[in-house]
Parts: sequence; C-alpha cells; structure tokens
Amino acid sequence: MQEKATHHLLINYPFTADNTLVVVTGFFQQHGFHILTIEQQISPEEPVAFMRIELQSSSLQSSNEEALEQQFEDQVATRYKMKWALQRLNKPKNIAIFVSKHDHVLLDLLKRRKQQRLNANILCVISNHPDLRHEVEEIAGLPFHQVPVNKISKFTHEQEIADLLKKNKPELIVLARYMQVLSADFVRQYQNKIINIHHSFLPAFAGANPYQQAFHRGVKLIGATAHYVTSELDQGPIIEQDAIRVSHRYSTADLKDIGSDLECNVLSRAVNWHLEDRVIVHDNKTTIFYS
Amino acid sequence: MQEKATHHLLINYPFTADNTLVVVTGFFQQHGFHILTIEQQISPEEPVAFMRIELQSSSLQSSNEEALEQQFEDQVATRYKMKWALQRLNKPKNIAIFVSKHDHVLLDLLKRRKQQRLNANILCVISNHPDLRHEVEEIAGLPFHQVPVNKISKFTHEQEIADLLKKNKPELIVLARYMQVLSADFVRQYQNKIINIHHSFLPAFAGANPYQQAFHRGVKLIGATAHYVTSELDQGPIIEQDAIRVSHRYSTADLKDIGSDLECNVLSRAVNWHLEDRVIVHDNKTTIFYS
Amino acid sequence: MQEKATHHLLINYPFTADNTLVVVTGFFQQHGFHILTIEQQISPEEPVAFMRIELQSSSLQSSNEEALEQQFEDQVATRYKMKWALQRLNKPKNIAIFVSKHDHVLLDLLKRRKQQRLNANILCVISNHPDLRHEVEEIAGLPFHQVPVNKISKFTHEQEIADLLKKNKPELIVLARYMQVLSADFVRQYQNKIINIHHSFLPAFAGANPYQQAFHRGVKLIGATAHYVTSELDQGPIIEQDAIRVSHRYSTADLKDIGSDLECNVLSRAVNWHLEDRVIVHDNKTTIFYS
Amino acid sequence: MQEKATHHLLINYPFTADNTLVVVTGFFQQHGFHILTIEQQISPEEPVAFMRIELQSSSLQSSNEEALEQQFEDQVATRYKMKWALQRLNKPKNIAIFVSKHDHVLLDLLKRRKQQRLNANILCVISNHPDLRHEVEEIAGLPFHQVPVNKISKFTHEQEIADLLKKNKPELIVLARYMQVLSADFVRQYQNKIINIHHSFLPAFAGANPYQQAFHRGVKLIGATAHYVTSELDQGPIIEQDAIRVSHRYSTADLKDIGSDLECNVLSRAVNWHLEDRVIVHDNKTTIFYS
Repeated sequence: MQEKATHHLLINYPFTADNTLVVVTGFFQQHGFHILTIEQQISPEEPVAFMRIELQSSSLQSSNEEALEQQFEDQVATRYKMKWALQRLNKPKNIAIFVSKHDHVLLDLLKRRKQQRLNANILCVISNHPDLRHEVEEIAGLPFHQVPVNKISKFTHEQEIADLLKKNKPELIVLARYMQVLSADFVRQYQNKIINIHHSFLPAFAGANPYQQAFHRGVKLIGATAHYVTSELDQGPIIEQDAIRVSHRYSTADLKDIGSDLECNVLSRAVNWHLEDRVIVHDNKTTIFYS
Repeated sequence: MQEKATHHLLINYPFTADNTLVVVTGFFQQHGFHILTIEQQISPEEPVAFMRIELQSSSLQSSNEEALEQQFEDQVATRYKMKWALQRLNKPKNIAIFVSKHDHVLLDLLKRRKQQRLNANILCVISNHPDLRHEVEEIAGLPFHQVPVNKISKFTHEQEIADLLKKNKPELIVLARYMQVLSADFVRQYQNKIINIHHSFLPAFAGANPYQQAFHRGVKLIGATAHYVTSELDQGPIIEQDAIRVSHRYSTADLKDIGSDLECNVLSRAVNWHLEDRVIVHDNKTTIFYS
Repeated sequence: MQEKATHHLLINYPFTADNTLVVVTGFFQQHGFHILTIEQQISPEEPVAFMRIELQSSSLQSSNEEALEQQFEDQVATRYKMKWALQRLNKPKNIAIFVSKHDHVLLDLLKRRKQQRLNANILCVISNHPDLRHEVEEIAGLPFHQVPVNKISKFTHEQEIADLLKKNKPELIVLARYMQVLSADFVRQYQNKIINIHHSFLPAFAGANPYQQAFHRGVKLIGATAHYVTSELDQGPIIEQDAIRVSHRYSTADLKDIGSDLECNVLSRAVNWHLEDRVIVHDNKTTIFYS
Repeated sequence: MQEKATHHLLINYPFTADNTLVVVTGFFQQHGFHILTIEQQISPEEPVAFMRIELQSSSLQSSNEEALEQQFEDQVATRYKMKWALQRLNKPKNIAIFVSKHDHVLLDLLKRRKQQRLNANILCVISNHPDLRHEVEEIAGLPFHQVPVNKISKFTHEQEIADLLKKNKPELIVLARYMQVLSADFVRQYQNKIINIHHSFLPAFAGANPYQQAFHRGVKLIGATAHYVTSELDQGPIIEQDAIRVSHRYSTADLKDIGSDLECNVLSRAVNWHLEDRVIVHDNKTTIFYS
C-alpha cells in the first residue's frame, strides 16, 4: 500500500493579477493532489508574488516525481516566469556543518538533532581546527574532517573542502561560527545554500569582533543574525535576527556569554525554516512562511 | 469609470482534504475576481480549515454584492458547511467605545485615529462617568454619552446603552478600560463584536485589581490581554497579549504606569486586526492572519 | 602570600532612616575590607531595606571568618534586626539536581557547567527514573542515583532522598523538571534552597500539563517561571520569568518544543543569580541584585 | 516647619579600592543626611567607579545648599578626582523641545506630561516648521516658536534658537524628531544635555532615512535609539534602545508606522532617566542606575 506523500511547493513570480494561483492549484488538483495549506503574498513594494503550498497525494510515486516536475515546468512555470522548487516534506535534508574552535553553536545543533528537533541528516563536520573532533566523533558519532588553514594556502584549503563536499553532496552548509571567509567562487556554487550565524545585529558591527565593537559603542541591546552567505561579507539575505537587553555592567566577555545563547537560538530557527522549505530569496531579501 | 473593489473573505470549515480551496478560488475567478493574497491553515489539533483571501474586482458594483453573497452561500458555503464573511476592504467599520474614568486607552485610540492608523469611524463614546467628556467632545469632536450606573439600576443602565447602540449600529464595540461587567444578554447580541482590554496576562490575575495582584505575587513580567467578551468574565477568545519586564522595585503604582502603555499597544493591535478582517473565532480561540 | 578574598554580604532589615548603611560599611572598613560595589534599595511599599555589598580583604584568613561573622552578629546585626549572610565570592556552591524523564533542562545545565558558565559543584543527580543515567554518569562523569517512586511508598522515596542528601550536603537543590511534589516537611529543611522550573507563566497554568492548558486557552505568549519551592505547590517566591510569542498554529507539541528552550534559559538565570548571592527572599517575594 | 529635602548625588571617580564610598557617606551623615538608597558600580573594563545616592535631610535649607556643595567639593571631590552633581529630587527640570513636522514623538511627550508621567517643566517648543503650532499653543497651552531654516541661513537659524534658549535657560533639550543637524559649537554648549531619538538601532542605519535603509536591507527587527547629541552625527552616548520584530511583509510605510510607537517609548524612557538623575556619561558611554 502506498503512503501519502506530502510536498512543499515554493514559487515566486511577477504578479500580474491574472489568477496564476488558480492555475497552479488547478494543475495539482488535476494530478491528484490535495492542498493542505497555501499562502500567497505580494511584495509590499513591487509586483512580485511569493507562494508556498503544502500538497498531499496518495497516488504519486517517487518515480513519477520527475515527470510531474517537468510537466509543471512546461505547462505552468515557464509561461508565468516562475522560480520554483518542489520538495518532499519530512525527508531530512543532507547538511554539512563548518566550525572553527567555538563549540557552543555546534553543540546546540547536535543537541537539537538528538532531541529530534532538527530534521536533517548531518553528513559531516568540517573544521580548520582539531578541537571539536572528540565531540563530533565520539559523542555524536559523526564524521569529522580537519582541513587546516595554516599549513597550506587558503586556496588549497578551500579546494580540499570542495572535494569533501563533492563526495558528500550536502543540500545545505551551516557555518556554525566558522571563522574563515569563503571565496566568491565557492559561494557561487552554493547559492542560498550556505547559512552563517553572525554575532551581531547586522548591519551593525559587521566584520570581526562584533562583541568588542558593541562593548565600545555602549549599545543597550546586542543581537545575532542568521543569513545566507554571498560573496560580499555579512551582506547576504537575512533569514532571522534577534536581540537581547544588556547594560553598561557587561564586559566584552559577558556579551560573548549572553550572546552565545542568542546565536544558537537564531541560527537554529533559520536552519529549521530552511529545512522546512519556508524561505524564498528574492533580490537579496528573504520571504519567510512562518510556522 | 469604475474603481477596483477589494474584498476580504474569511472562511472556516471542516477540512476533508477535498480541495475546497480550489472550489472557492474557482467561484471567485468565474465572477471576475483576481486573488491578491490567500492563506489557508489547518488547525494543529483538529480537521478545521481557516482561510483568508484578498480579492479584487474591477466589475463588481455595490448593488451586486448581495446577489454574489447569496450565490456563494447557495453554491459553495452550504455544501462545505462554511462559516464565512465577505468584507469590503478599506471601508472603515463603525465602532463605539465604552470608557469609565481611566483615560489612557481612549486617548491612545483617539491619537491613532488622528494619525490615520485606526481605520474606523468612531460613532460615539459611552461612559458611566462624565470625566472624559471634554476630551471626546471638545478635543476630538465626537459624540459623548454619559450613562451613569449609580443613580439607576444596572439593568436600566444597560438598557439605556442598548438604545443608544440601536441608533448608532456599531459593527464593533471597544471596551477601553470600561469598568462595568456587561450582562450575558447584552453580550450575546454582539458575539465576537466586543473587544476588551484586560490589564493582565490572562488567565493570570483575572478579575479586579490585576496590578495589585501582580505586585503581591511578585511576578517578573506583567502583561495585557485583548479578548472578545463572552458571558464568562475574562474568559473570551484571546486576540493579542504582550508582556513587559518589571522588578521588585516597582510599586503597584509603577506597574499601573508601565502597564498603561502596554494596554494601549495590545488593544490597538487587536482592534486593527479585527478592523482588517484578520480574525476568525472558532471554539473560544482565535486564528489571526497576521499582516 | 595571601590572595585577596572577595565576599558578598546580603542583608535585609527594617528601614528607619538612621544610616544603618554607614554602620555596616564602617564595620567592614575597620576590619580591613574595601567595598567594591554596594547597592541598598528600599521596598516600594514597606519600610524594609535590602542591601548587597561586594567586599575585598587582603588580610582575612578563612580561620578568622567565623570570628568576624560572630562580631558582626553581635555588634551590628542584632541591634538592627538584620537577616544576613556572608558568602565567599567565586567559591562554587555544592548543588544537587533532581530530574525525572525530561532531559532538556538537565542537559542544558550540564552544557553550561562544561562551558564554565555555572559556578557550581554538582554533587549528584537524583531521579525517580533510570533514563538519564547514561548522560549523567558516562557523558558528564557525575554520580547518578535512581530512587524509584513506584515500587516504594512516596514517603520511603523521600526518606531515601533525604539520606542521600545528608551525605552530600548540597547548598542548593535544582529541580530540573522533577515531576514529583516534595512534602512540606522536606521543603522546610531547605527553605529558599530549592529552585524549581515551572513550564508556564505563573500564576497562570499552575499544576499539571501547563502547555496543554495554554493550548486550550489559546494564549498568544507562553512562559516559564523559576521559583523557590515552598509547601504550597507553585506558590513560592518567583526568581525569574520569561515569555515567548506563539500563535494559533502551534500544537501542544509545538508549545512544548519552543517552551523547552525558554525553561532552560529562565532556570539557568535563576540558578546563576542564586549562586552569585544576588537573591534576597522577603515575604514570599524576591529582591534580585541584577548583574 | 521644614519639609524633608531629598537629593540625588551622582559621582564618578577613578577607583582605587580605598573606601572612598565610606568617605562620601560619612560626609553626608555628618551634615545631617540619611541615606535612602545607594548604588556603587565598577566599570567592567577599567578602574572607574560610578555612584548614585538618594539622600534625605530634615535640616537642609535651600540657602545652605551652595555652602554644602562647596564643602563637598573642597573636602571630598577634589581629593578623589570626582566628577559629581547634586540634584534636588522631584524638582521638575526645565526643558525645551525641538521638532520639525513629525508630530508623534511630541504628542507622546505632551500626553505623558498631562498624565503626570514626565517630571519636567516644558519651557517652549521650537520648530523650523509651523505645522505643530496648534497642538502646542492651543491644545497644550505652551509657547511655540517657529524658527524657519529655509528663508535664512543655517547659521542665523541656530543663532536665533540660541537667543531663545538664553532667555529660557533649559536644563535639557529634547530633539523630538527634529530633522536639522546642530553645529558642533551649539552642541558643545549643551554637553550631555541634548537627547535625540534616532529611528534605528544604532550604529545600524545612521544618517538619513533609516526605515528605508532597513527595508532595503531586509532586517527582521527594527529599532530606535535615544542618545546624547555630540558633534559627530548619531555617534553620541546611547541612553536607551529597543527593537521590535518585523517581517518581509512590511513596506517602508509600515516600518515607519510600527517604529513610531517604539521611538516614543524609547525616548520617554531616556528622558525620564535623565530627569531622575539616573545617567552618568563617561567615555562616550552611559551608566544608567535603573529604577
């Protein structure tokens, strides 16, 4: 007997008020799908529509998925100039995690995985330092690859990582306080597929040492920002941000301490939204279909 | 030349996964509407669907609206056991505001009206006290009706208010710190059409003097709750809540002071969502289609 | 060579505006102390003063501490009817943690201990279930005692725990989602020394299943409360609370999920403030000297 | 009969751990004062102490205040290199408010004054536009001075304002969305006596049109910042900040709308802390003694 297959469909297209939505839902009805939830929004300042549909079918077999996608492309998407993606719900995405020495964000992701609150299959953890090997290999039982930066050129380092990824084929890369800047070439291969956590309320305190910058500026809130990585440092589309109250009594070390929880919370929300196909990127901004 | 008419359609219905959504959108497409935004959600714990659609038509005339509604009822709503309402967007709703002596919530609503941030036509302000007459009549230029409680029986008081409302026909009644309890009979006539602001984080501190209760319990956050009024005191469907940090240093008077801003913010959000047709009540709970 | 010893002094006393503060600071100056930080507050609604002083001495030896305390009691505290405690700063307090089956709060405390963000010496973890033994013994390397409830009477269970504690002598007991109610007798022995995390915004949803209660009431924020345990269930002095926004889309399971992070954050703040001698309890309310 | 006079004393001084605090409290005890509340903090990253004392005397007459201040300067402050200020509690400070065309912040300050939540004597409102004259003169009954910028040079404009202020002698100037940049010369005369509200989470989006900048960057929180004005635009010591969640659905106009409440709240907190002598500025950062 066949199980019911649930899918997410994410679409954005130039909005011309000609009921494209009826065309899309009609297409899937004809192919035996039921629509569970749907949301179409219009950008507040330009005629672009963003749509997310949860679909269920009791007849679709995996083997037919490709054919269905081709039909949708030919009959609907091309005509309406759509960018779209169809994802099978609850199928864990394969991810790779990059770290350096800071352990708190990685440990938080591993904790959530253990608590079944991170619907992902962690292929491997890659680091330029050996420090977190024990945590990853012994405690979490996951592959750990150390790719040092110092002894080899920056280019070779990235090449070595690229090779590892070619084998692993991650659908998402999470930079869990990975302290290296990735090259434009590397980033281009994983467009909107690399999520970084920056430990400030961007665009404030971009670049290095944001907690120290925050201390010196005397801000009364500190923040954290999860964003897709683009070739411009700390300039990619923001997925999630949050902030927390601090005071003049906090040293830079205190800011790091209180900020570390914030980083974990912000990153895990962003990663989960990506894993649940809730994010559309358009024009360096994200549309999030919140749960 | 005709202007484009935009409408909101709010629906809830028992969800059976048979693409009712396609039927609804199809109906409006056939009647010359374009769908701007749509959102269908399923209740997390029972098979009930909640839908909100923003529709636009360049051909619908007001005179035809009633006919269209009848057709929708006959052809769609009855068949799918829908509860629904079609509202013309941006048409200000007529509201009545009830107050007692506290002025802060009323003044905030009047300020928002002046700033064109409250899309409502305030028919009148009704109070059991004379205190705010000047603010309402002189400053805001609105009708003020004093209906005292003390000198007449509670029943007569309410009867007098009912008579005033019969003339005014408000679509929404806002209790802006109105300190009287309305009878079950009265409330029944305005089901989901009376919004109250309670100055606590319900269900904590229901009833009288919530700030004093909060002081004595030593809570570290105080809250405010906007809810529809039902015959059970402070038990109606919650529309919006918020909370703010306090400390042991706050006296009851301080809590009232800091809480007064919170009450204004929470109530105005709730009222605006109601005015923008973003709220569906089902089973003593609200579904809000957030902007 | 002697190290500098830093202490915390916590005092509360009936306030009569006769410069008791000058007497206290004078006493410690005469005994060779320097005052680093000081804070005296007056209760907002009764004449009670709360004071916290950080003191530093380069001459005090541990052996003299008892004599100094006796002198302070005799010369100052008795005269001004003070309740007070002098604590050596940065000396980790000995704590015991009670758990049942839920692991998230315990894991969070263990994580913070590992990150050196919990200045405590965890003597042991006590549970009525065996589930978390591996985490405690193998991963964290701490003693784990299972004291089952089912097979023995409630009384015997508590007796067995009391015996364990007599050996361990904890200065603080942390109930990290321990699902048993402690008897009034037990609680009396650890007055203001047992901190519980309740998974609601008290006094809302006291008692069992707060997330389910919150779901049914349709609240728009959920909360968590850390409080000292008294003989009345969920009625003890509140140390810390926080709340987080939810919506109608959240199932009870979603509330549990998002609430679990909140519980960890709220409890860890409360425990840290207790460990840093920042909490005075007076009249079922807490005064917190925030960092 | 004499009333009791309550004062605030604010001090900062290089901290050398030699019990300066005992000297200060001793001085006031000798002069017949009682200490109500006291707080001394040490900067987290340099040896500087910040102290605030609430003092009460039943014998001090206004005529003696100057003599007392001179004695404190001679006997204590000079010796310990203190910067200090003694203020009479509850004596409303004289303030001037500068506005342009935006009315929301001004209206909020006037509302708080009416509700007796702003302990200040508003001397006058100065604007480069005539728009708010009616609100100020007719509704609030306060002097309104229009000093246009366009028809005269920037220099003459500021000169005209300076002349007005010479007559009025404000102790604090509040820039309630005043859209002109004040010259370094002007600012220098009112060091730490001009509070501005900037409608972003500084240092993000300094300069013009922060809401538009925020919209284009796609941030998920917007903020507001109250700070003392220095000669460097938007770089002065931050007194208060807050942030509020927004989403991709918000247009620039929506951000302005939701941000306008935030601006009012943040500014009023900052102004009240200044009026209650709770702010010490040191090294372009503020120490706030929170209530």
